[in-house]
This record gives sequence, C-alpha cells and structure tokens, in this order.
Amino acid sequence: MNESGRGRRIVAKFGGSSVADAASIKRVARRIVAAKQAGNEVVVVISAMGDTTDELMDLALQVSPQPQPRELDMLLTTGERQSAALLAMAMNDLGVEALSYTGSQAGVITTAQHGNARIIDITPGRIEKSLEEGYVVIVAGFQGVSQTTKDITTLGRGASDTTAVALAAALRADVCEIYTDVDGVYTADPRIVKGARQIPRISYDEMLELAACGAKILHLRCVEYARREGVTVHVRSSFSNKPGTLVTGLVDMQKGNAMEEAIISGIAHDRGEAKVTVAGVPDQVGVAAKIFEVIAECDVNIDMIVQNVSEVATGATDITFTVPMSDGKKAVDALNAAKDRVGFAELRYDDQIGKVSVVGVGMRTHPGVTAKFFGALAAANVNIQMISTSEIRISVVVDAADVDAAVQAAHSAFELDADEEAVVYAGTGR
Amino acid sequence: MNESGRGRRIVAKFGGSSVADAASIKRVARRIVAAKQAGNEVVVVISAMGDTTDELMDLALQVSPQPQPRELDMLLTTGERQSAALLAMAMNDLGVEALSYTGSQAGVITTAQHGNARIIDITPGRIEKSLEEGYVVIVAGFQGVSQTTKDITTLGRGASDTTAVALAAALRADVCEIYTDVDGVYTADPRIVKGARQIPRISYDEMLELAACGAKILHLRCVEYARREGVTVHVRSSFSNKPGTLVTGLVDMQKGNAMEEAIISGIAHDRGEAKVTVAGVPDQVGVAAKIFEVIAECDVNIDMIVQNVSEVATGATDITFTVPMSDGKKAVDALNAAKDRVGFAELRYDDQIGKVSVVGVGMRTHPGVTAKFFGALAAANVNIQMISTSEIRISVVVDAADVDAAVQAAHSAFELDADEEAVVYAGTGR
Repeated sequence: MNESGRGRRIVAKFGGSSVADAASIKRVARRIVAAKQAGNEVVVVISAMGDTTDELMDLALQVSPQPQPRELDMLLTTGERQSAALLAMAMNDLGVEALSYTGSQAGVITTAQHGNARIIDITPGRIEKSLEEGYVVIVAGFQGVSQTTKDITTLGRGASDTTAVALAAALRADVCEIYTDVDGVYTADPRIVKGARQIPRISYDEMLELAACGAKILHLRCVEYARREGVTVHVRSSFSNKPGTLVTGLVDMQKGNAMEEAIISGIAHDRGEAKVTVAGVPDQVGVAAKIFEVIAECDVNIDMIVQNVSEVATGATDITFTVPMSDGKKAVDALNAAKDRVGFAELRYDDQIGKVSVVGVGMRTHPGVTAKFFGALAAANVNIQMISTSEIRISVVVDAADVDAAVQAAHSAFELDADEEAVVYAGTGR
Repeated sequence: MNESGRGRRIVAKFGGSSVADAASIKRVARRIVAAKQAGNEVVVVISAMGDTTDELMDLALQVSPQPQPRELDMLLTTGERQSAALLAMAMNDLGVEALSYTGSQAGVITTAQHGNARIIDITPGRIEKSLEEGYVVIVAGFQGVSQTTKDITTLGRGASDTTAVALAAALRADVCEIYTDVDGVYTADPRIVKGARQIPRISYDEMLELAACGAKILHLRCVEYARREGVTVHVRSSFSNKPGTLVTGLVDMQKGNAMEEAIISGIAHDRGEAKVTVAGVPDQVGVAAKIFEVIAECDVNIDMIVQNVSEVATGATDITFTVPMSDGKKAVDALNAAKDRVGFAELRYDDQIGKVSVVGVGMRTHPGVTAKFFGALAAANVNIQMISTSEIRISVVVDAADVDAAVQAAHSAFELDADEEAVVYAGTGR
C-alpha cells in the first residue's frame, strides 16, 4: 500500500495465511510501516494466525461435543487478539507506534447471535483518537461485542473482511485494502482454469454475485457492506506488489476499456452446498411456506429452490433446495421432526453436487447468454440438475465430479481465456 | 468444596496445572458442579492452561526482542480467556449453566502498569447479577482493565490468587478456596525436608512472611489482600479431598492446640534472589538514599539491605542488598549508569545465593530463637552472608549450594519434623 500516495486514510486487512508465523508477522509489519511512513493514516484488521482457529475449535470439541456458542466466541476471539498484539509488538520494534484493540475496544457493536453476529454499529472513538495521536491501530478482526448482552461475539467465518469494510465506512477511509494470498479477483479459479485472467476492476454487483456463487476471495457480507456504504475495496496480495483488483460502484469505462466489451466478468463455482429434496408434497397453497418456515426456524440459509410441476395422478409435487453443506444435517433433522406438520412422503439428501455460475453485468443487455452457457455445458457432456438466475447471473447445480469441466467450458465459451497461465492460488484466510 | 455446607458463597481459584488439558478441565468442572449442586453460589477464577503463558511469551519473543508491555498484556491475557471459556463449556455439558467473563467484564479495575498492575477496585455488578440468575461465574484470572487508559492489564505472575481474593472480598464470599497441586501449606518444602508437616491453620502474618520468603504456595500480594480485607483463604489440592490449610486472621487455639506450643510455624527458602554489593561508597549522609533512588527509578523491589561499618582508614563503606534475580541486570545497569552521581568504587553481583527464613508468631515471646537458628546453621557448616529480621521472622542469605542443608537443619532444630514422609509437591500454577 506504500505506493498509494500521501495523506490517505487506509484500512488494511490481512488474513490468517499472511500472519502464519513470526516471520510473516514481521513482513506484514514492514509493509504497514512503509504505508505509515509514506504519510498515510493506517488501521489494520487482522485475522488469527494460520490454523489457530481450527486448533481452538479442536480443543473446544475435546471439552464439549457441542460447545456453547457464547463460550465458543469467548474462546475463538482470542486468536485474533493474539495476532493483533504480536503485530503491534513487531511494528513498535520498527519504530512506528501501534496499538492493538479487541473488536469490543474498537467499537464493533453487533447483534447477540453468537457465531454469526451482524455488525449493527461502529463507534470508532478510540480509533479516531489513536489515529489523531499518530498511532497505527491494529484491530482484532472477526469479533465484536453484543449491543444487548455486552458479551463477546464473532461475525462468522470470513468476517474479518466485513470488519475491515465496516471500519473503513465508519472511519470514512479512502480505501479498504484486503490483503490475501491471491493477487486479485480472477475470471475463474486459476487452479481449475489455466487461462483464468486477473480482473483489474469489478463492480459491487458482479463481485456480490461472484462471492455468493462461491468465489472465496471476498466474503459475501463484506461486499454487501461495501456496496451499501460505498467503500472502495482493493483486493491485493500480501506477497507481492501487483496492482490487484479494485471493487467499486462504477467501473470506470475510460480506464477499463476491455471491460466494456466483456459480457461476462467471471465464472464462479461452489462445492460447499448440499441438495435437499422434499418429495411427495401435497400441491396446496401454503405447503412450500411451511417447509421454509421449518428451515428458517433452525437458522439455515437457503440458496436455490426448484419446485417441480405437480403430477396429475397424485396431486403431489417435489420441492428441491440447496443449503450450505455444514447445515445439511440440521435442515434434514428439522424437516424430519416436522414431517407431520409439513406432510411429505420422503426426504432425499445429496452433498455430491457443485454449483457453477456465470456472472456479468453485460448479460443484462445481451440475450443469448443462457443459451451459450447451456450449450457449452452440453458440449462438455455436463448434466444440469437445477437452474437459478438473477439479472446478472446464471447458476446451475451439477454433479460434483462435473464442476471442473463445467467451469472450463463456460470460461472458454465466453472468451475469458488469457494467453498465459495464471499463478495458481491457495485458499484465503478468513 | 462440596462438603462445605449449604448456601455459602464460594470463590474458588484453580491454577494452570489443574486445567492442563481437556480431561483436567472436565475434572475441575465436575468438582465445581458438585459444589453448586450442594446449594452454594460459586465464582471460579481460572489460570491459563498448563504452559500456555510460556508458549505465548516464546511467540512474543520470536516477534520482538523486547515486547511492548501493553501488547504483551493483550497477548498473555488470551490464555486465561481460553481456559475460562473451555471450563464454562464443560460445565454447561454437565447441566450447570456457567458464564465466562474476562477480567474486564468481571469488573477488575487496575492501575495502568502493564505486566504488574495492581487492583484498584472491583465492580462486581455483572457477577452479582449472574449469581442471582443462578449461573456459576468463571472469571479469567491474572487480568484486569486499566482505570485510566481502558487497556487490558495483567497483575503479574501468581496474580490469579490475588484476583480470587479480591473478588471474594468484593462479593463478600464466605471463603476463597485456592486449589493447587499441593494439599496445603507445609512447615517446609517437602522436596527438601522429608519430615515436613502440613499446617491445618496459619495466621495471615505468618503466611505473609512465608510467602515473602519464597514459599510459592500463595502469592504475597494475595495474602496481603486477604489480611487487609479479612478474607478467609483455604488452600486445597485439586487432586484430592484432603482438608488443606486455612489462612485466617485469628488462629483458633481451641482447634489448633498444637499450634499454641509451636514457636515456629515454618521454614521458607527462596533461590530467586541475587546479591548486589556497592563497594567503596563514601560514608556520608545521603549516599545510601542515592543508591536506592536509582534502584527505585528502575522499578526494582529490594529485599534485604546490609551496610558495613565504615573503614576508618578510607572513610568508605559497602552497601549490599538483594533483588529478584530477574531484575538483577536492570539494577546493575542502572547503578553503573549512575556511577558518577552515586560515587562508588566497585559493583559486585552474585546470583549464586539463597535465602532461608524461619517464621512464627511464637518467636515474639520466645527469646533464643535467633541463637537456636544460627547454632543449627553452624552445626550444619553453613556460612551466613547476610541477616535480616522482622518481629516474626529471621532470614539469612547463604550460598546457593547450602540452601537444602540450612532448611533441613532449621526444620529439625525447631522440632517441626513429622514421623512420616510428606507427599512431594511440584511447583504451583499461577
């Protein structure tokens, strides 16, 4: 971030892989020191070191098969506090005064929903004061404090990005830089598509659809927050000085001429969902509502929904939907418990599926995108199980084994392939 | 603590060795559940698991050779938060609702001196409310929040005991139980003296002298706090149901008849000090004051002080004092830097020393204790380097290699030896 010019206010977020050990922490410290010494005001949001969160989760499961969510939040939030304190120490050694704050101290006020709290408000008084006094501020990501119970909360996995964007909005920062182990947003996962290209600029809407469809680079809630608050997000690699990807409201057509031509900005995929089929449902008003009431009661998010045309003979129909694989058991258990109330014949569950999505604002004005996508899938011999569309996205559910072929076929069909191979990237921190 | 009767309010502290792993945490949870189910109100103060604090300190030193005290406190306090959360999870699984609180949430208000803060006040509103609602409250020990800066502080090593006593005072608890890996206070370290006996009751004054003289079982500040606030402290083993040792204001002579006869309650020793000799000091008014000003400025506690009679020929004298070994370098560096201001000839440093102390309220009314102690040392061929006394204590500094022999000789001379061997104990957690 050191080349970003003078006197800007920057919120920068570093993921767990950027602070995996003492050497990485020192490297990140040097990067932040350079930005500070270039005259910027800097607030850093930090994730837990490497596998810390997984290790703490293992420890919790050794003590309790189903750890209490309130206590789990108390436990897990220590990971970010540790990395924040360590980073502040490393910076102080480099001669730049830094202060670490917990989410609570930083004024991250949330709902009381442990494990998946939402940010209600940011009260950045302490941060503002510390910035005025010349400090770099390091904030433990992923956490806040409940407005009602005053208990420590977590925002759910991936939510350090959201903390960063929310802080950037509250502090009226010029930019929110998200440092990760990838050097930006790609047209597809370069591990699957050799010709995947890095995208220099992308709109909030497209980024939102990509995030919702499984692109792991930015957390969905983070992009939503950025769009709502108009925060410019800059996705960059913590391992290089490459320009990265800017996520903004209006993609500047002057600078991004190539973008104007592109109908499709990228192909996303997601292997993290499972498919639940409720079969033999009476085709009556209110039955679908009952099913989704049951699912809502157990706090599971539904992604795609398909209802078959009812069979004339039986007057019954099937309803199929997808949920996060981690919530699959919860959804199935809840439905089985409510079998009499809902009135269905059979429940089927399949987690050997994948979702492939084509995203692009260009498709609003380009008919034929659906035809081209489905044609490419057919040519690659990929069977479509479910379909869902938005104004700027088409998603299909396919067999898990077909995901790679589907992504490659779509990437080529929409002429996204680059001439040279992309750098392969690993999973990102949270 | 389950046999303690019904309806009492108990503050119980468990050290790091009592919660070293998941199995230990579950065992402690069962013990607390039994106390709660017996009708008591229970507040638990917990240390970090096993070696967590040392591991975090290692991590800090990997990142920074001299970690900033504020950030070190932020880092180290996560250890107790983890064990508190894990213990609460384990208790909830046993059907007893528990809530973990950080020191800050528990209302532990301290000075701003990072690494060695002192408790100024306890505002136990949240704890009181949780107890009224029927919860067991688990408090992360060793930590608080600064009254002035609102930063997270630590109370220094051993200070979870102090947290427990301070909470017991603020909550007007009936007793503060300190669970450790020893089953009480002994007349000497059973690792050195095979015939050491467990003491059923001991006064604050004697416990204070024992703690100050190196008995590691209770932290000095904790006993001071207990005496000032009149908190009954019960030292017990977390591995057995033995009766332990009660530390109280007035030792009940009815129950403790044996105590009435005892002149000496115990022999303590301390290998943690170093001896600094400032040689060739002009024997003038104000010179000693200058030396100890220098030491006070670098925040080092002095224990014993001896000044030699000045030599007639030179008009110069030597001043020798002891400091904690960990502060030895700091003290020597500070004195060397102030050599011109103080005006001395030479500085000598020796950390191969040990302090052996004889403690007992009985010595107030029994002359000849000093003669008996020194006679025993002479018979054991132990040379005395320094001497210091209080109303209920005599301490000597001896060569480190002579400590064991000195302790054994004194223990036998004051007829403290038991008929059978004591259980050998290990170091206690903090």
